[in-house]
Amino acid sequence: MNSPKSIRGSRRSPEQSQLAILDAALTEFASEGLAGARTDAIAKAAGVNKALLYYYFQDKEALYGAVLQHAFGDLLEQLMRVLTLERGPSYRVLAYATTHFDFVSAHPEYRRLIQFEMMRAGTGSSPHFAKLIETFFRPLMRKVISVLQEGIDSGEFRRVQPQQFLQSMVSVIVFYFTALPALRAMSPVDPLAPEALQQRRVAILDFISAALFEDRSMAASVAAEVLRDIQPANLPVSGAGNKRGRH
Amino acid sequence: MNSPKSIRGSRRSPEQSQLAILDAALTEFASEGLAGARTDAIAKAAGVNKALLYYYFQDKEALYGAVLQHAFGDLLEQLMRVLTLERGPSYRVLAYATTHFDFVSAHPEYRRLIQFEMMRAGTGSSPHFAKLIETFFRPLMRKVISVLQEGIDSGEFRRVQPQQFLQSMVSVIVFYFTALPALRAMSPVDPLAPEALQQRRVAILDFISAALFEDRSMAASVAAEVLRDIQPANLPVSGAGNKRGRH
Repeated sequence: MNSPKSIRGSRRSPEQSQLAILDAALTEFASEGLAGARTDAIAKAAGVNKALLYYYFQDKEALYGAVLQHAFGDLLEQLMRVLTLERGPSYRVLAYATTHFDFVSAHPEYRRLIQFEMMRAGTGSSPHFAKLIETFFRPLMRKVISVLQEGIDSGEFRRVQPQQFLQSMVSVIVFYFTALPALRAMSPVDPLAPEALQQRRVAILDFISAALFEDRSMAASVAAEVLRDIQPANLPVSGAGNKRGRH
Repeated sequence: MNSPKSIRGSRRSPEQSQLAILDAALTEFASEGLAGARTDAIAKAAGVNKALLYYYFQDKEALYGAVLQHAFGDLLEQLMRVLTLERGPSYRVLAYATTHFDFVSAHPEYRRLIQFEMMRAGTGSSPHFAKLIETFFRPLMRKVISVLQEGIDSGEFRRVQPQQFLQSMVSVIVFYFTALPALRAMSPVDPLAPEALQQRRVAILDFISAALFEDRSMAASVAAEVLRDIQPANLPVSGAGNKRGRH
């Protein structure tokens, strides 16, 4: 046994300790699954004792729920930031698409959580799914639909049905990661290699903008501008900064 | 005990018995999963004795592999039929999209198999995935890409990158079913209700044709023609027949 620690952990604020637990739990749940994850391992990786973990998060299922809220909260924050930029709807909708794609590609542990959560929700056995719908899916859906409606009203977008278009757009953004086993088996190139991801983001913006924008030359120029402005953290390209300008 | 049966089952040909076993196995695997499925129950539902089942299919894992080949074989046959119609590439690519969507919407047991197979493939634990890639995914991919290239060459389609466009198109067609738990939680309407499915197929053809076709009025007219010609078996609409004509 090492030196005794107080229940609060050493020198960290409660917020810091909670964040350390959530980060460690995210890693453990993603690699071991909910059933296989061990709170001992999470406490150890977070540098806290197990009593503190249970003090903050009650039990493993509650901790798992908190991890979901934490991961989806990060994603929602990033998406809301680009969806509320002081730019026209054309720029914002493509900035949303590429930011969503980049987040999922940069966070394998998020991919495992959402896949597991969808499976549980499919069998009605997730106690967290309803909250996730209310705190993540629904606010995101409302915001994207309002941006689509704005572009339809201004005449920049075709008169698509916003709810249906959102579903199609999300499909094109995230299905790549659901289909990874098939892509891996069929392609000589790793679909998660930086070059493959960069080709995919270009194709996603081309597909969405061609389907949505009234004016195809505008589609191409806004897509190029978004790709120049938004650089994924995990791609080896030099950043051009987040410029603001037209559209 | 009832009257004894011969190992071949009564009055059926070997092909009929095998088909009866495959159909019963598809139902059992889809509802119970590979681990939970019982060969006793499959043999009983197929009306054969267990010795015959093992005579044809060796063991449960081999039977599961045969069920996969059977289900994906049916889908591939339907898709190849529309992809080789004596029609232009515009018609064939949209006929493919709607036929693929209709198949997945009409076959919940297929949805469960592919989801389970993707999960196993993701962890490298499926002994059947490589064969599925070679007998289903790769032939389908080659054929759709050749139709896309044909339309690009004829000037009907934009100069998309066919491999990327195929990925986007498949995403838009099948992701709806992956996202069912979220759609169910967010919509007051059952996403598998005939009206919801019909709205979705209209939206899919609109999205794909708007993204692909050079001429948007042609996109709208071919999409309308395909929707008129191809009636999903599970939607309560009167059939207009499979007409052949322009495009």
